[in-house]
Amino acid sequence: MTTTGSLANGEADGTAGSAAPDKRGHRVTISDLARQLQISKASVSYALNGRAGVSDETRQRVLDLAEELGFHPNSAAVALSASRTRTIGIVIARDPTLISTEAFYMRTLVGIEQYLNEVDSSLLLRLTGENGEDLDVLRRWSRQGRVDGFVLFDEHQNDPRIPLLKELGVPCVVVSSNAPDDGVGRLISQPEETVTLLLDHLAELGHRDIAHVSGPFHFIHEQLRVQLLREHAAARGITVRHIEGNYRYDDGADHTRRLLTGPDRPTAVVLGNDLMAVAALRVTAELGIDVPGEVSILAWDDSPLCELAGPGITAVDQQTMERGRAAADLLLRLAGGQQQLHLEAPPGLLRIRTSSGPVI
Amino acid sequence: MTTTGSLANGEADGTAGSAAPDKRGHRVTISDLARQLQISKASVSYALNGRAGVSDETRQRVLDLAEELGFHPNSAAVALSASRTRTIGIVIARDPTLISTEAFYMRTLVGIEQYLNEVDSSLLLRLTGENGEDLDVLRRWSRQGRVDGFVLFDEHQNDPRIPLLKELGVPCVVVSSNAPDDGVGRLISQPEETVTLLLDHLAELGHRDIAHVSGPFHFIHEQLRVQLLREHAAARGITVRHIEGNYRYDDGADHTRRLLTGPDRPTAVVLGNDLMAVAALRVTAELGIDVPGEVSILAWDDSPLCELAGPGITAVDQQTMERGRAAADLLLRLAGGQQQLHLEAPPGLLRIRTSSGPVI
Repeated sequence: MTTTGSLANGEADGTAGSAAPDKRGHRVTISDLARQLQISKASVSYALNGRAGVSDETRQRVLDLAEELGFHPNSAAVALSASRTRTIGIVIARDPTLISTEAFYMRTLVGIEQYLNEVDSSLLLRLTGENGEDLDVLRRWSRQGRVDGFVLFDEHQNDPRIPLLKELGVPCVVVSSNAPDDGVGRLISQPEETVTLLLDHLAELGHRDIAHVSGPFHFIHEQLRVQLLREHAAARGITVRHIEGNYRYDDGADHTRRLLTGPDRPTAVVLGNDLMAVAALRVTAELGIDVPGEVSILAWDDSPLCELAGPGITAVDQQTMERGRAAADLLLRLAGGQQQLHLEAPPGLLRIRTSSGPVI
Repeated sequence: MTTTGSLANGEADGTAGSAAPDKRGHRVTISDLARQLQISKASVSYALNGRAGVSDETRQRVLDLAEELGFHPNSAAVALSASRTRTIGIVIARDPTLISTEAFYMRTLVGIEQYLNEVDSSLLLRLTGENGEDLDVLRRWSRQGRVDGFVLFDEHQNDPRIPLLKELGVPCVVVSSNAPDDGVGRLISQPEETVTLLLDHLAELGHRDIAHVSGPFHFIHEQLRVQLLREHAAARGITVRHIEGNYRYDDGADHTRRLLTGPDRPTAVVLGNDLMAVAALRVTAELGIDVPGEVSILAWDDSPLCELAGPGITAVDQQTMERGRAAADLLLRLAGGQQQLHLEAPPGLLRIRTSSGPVI
């Protein structure tokens, strides 16, 4: 079931709102209209956007049902019809082999794609690696008018992509962001709640000395996590050691080995992504250290790896697909001329599994 | 390290050939030129394609080094410069949530993206779900001239996409195919070799009664696997039971549970993908059946899930990223007017891990 429930925050502001919730609290989507009328989502989209491709009779049936169910085509759909290319761009500047092992990007892209498919729009994708070529691609696609805007991931400090796109006048939405008011679209992360859940879970289990192996500190979202852990851990009498990792399997293994064989072994290790957490689990097995009896292992990104590991890894589910949907939605609204620049990302959830347990 | 080693077959035909191997047997790529000259791959591509964006001096340095290293810009690069959009299209009609858990698609897309990035081209992507809307998208992107061609996955019997694209006159490459001579591009799978490796491995371990839980039989590549297993198993005195699965975790679990609790328990179960294999492993743990002591579990698609499972799962590595690269390369050649319609996919490899062992 696809819903646009993640948009609730933006809509509560009264600034946007593609659809009101129906009687069951479910937001009406183009998919719902298509299903009830037994026509394709593309046909619904044509009808709502006043484009050719459907008969007048079908158009009328779509508009009637949209009105009946409280679907208001005067926001996202209108925004969309004002856009030029019906295409959004994503340019990812990370090592491609890493992208292919981490589930994060695929789930985000799938969320974005689900949304785009519902509104009959497309994704132009480029993986450039880490040599700074992403800026060239952003510049050229913008100048060639190939996309209506960009979704940006992995914001880092003084990120040159943002002034570039502002200068070019191309809309963009930065995902997993804090909320500077600098005139670009931002899907605002609200990690406080998740950090609190994570720390409450560890505090209840008696942990007082934990280690946090993050991703690279130059990513804004990692800075946010470090800052929030620091703030909220102190109040609970918990000490957190922060170690900068790089999201890779071997790196997660190395840091964990050092932590667990060094002096002052922490009672819990929180790893910055699923891959590093699985690596940490493997290291505990090698060292003959019981999980969670002697150490708890947690991940800051849920995935099938965490679910299927033995023991299952307690993880922060960042609702990645929902985030992707929300980012694409905000971008299309911006491309259509709407002025609301910020939307709150859906809050993360803590998936408690068997890799975390009480300090013995 | 990126290589175009997967193109060796096509080049051996004497029909294509973007680059000769250098002294170490490594094929020279645009990345190599960029690295040696310390300029971006985009600049190399501009220089090779005679496009604006580099100085005459840089252009000459690129052409000189290309000649020195035996990189021949008169095939892929020339093909490419004849293409119109520098964009290829992929429209995937599978359940998006399944795509987000299986590593197969992400690795294929990453392989395609690596190649496209080297030749400064882009990917237009749409995930439509399973309602037949993929045909609409293929038709519209073709008519709007948005892509130079399509890479098609999951070919099934009487697949309507192929006559549609032939009628529209848009090049396409079908991945994981057998080799009908029907005028469209095909990346030809050569699973005989892998099937032989798989069966030799099982025969050596003493297995005589194995079960194969496939993906849906309507996929051509699954038909090929069933047919080849049947042919090659008989000669080794092995009986194979074929059961149609659907690539989902729960489905893999259900079939395995039935096989292992029913009469005539097989001594080995080969699952059609990584997710079903991990599910099978979980079922053996639930049932208290030792792997590989009492049953061997194998997967027909390698991934981090197989590598990181406990025990590690013996799997067929289909060299998915290399396949993606090869498919994109063939498509760009076709789009550029070359006539070679078939290219052999890199052969699969058997990754032997601890989930397979001798029959006791």
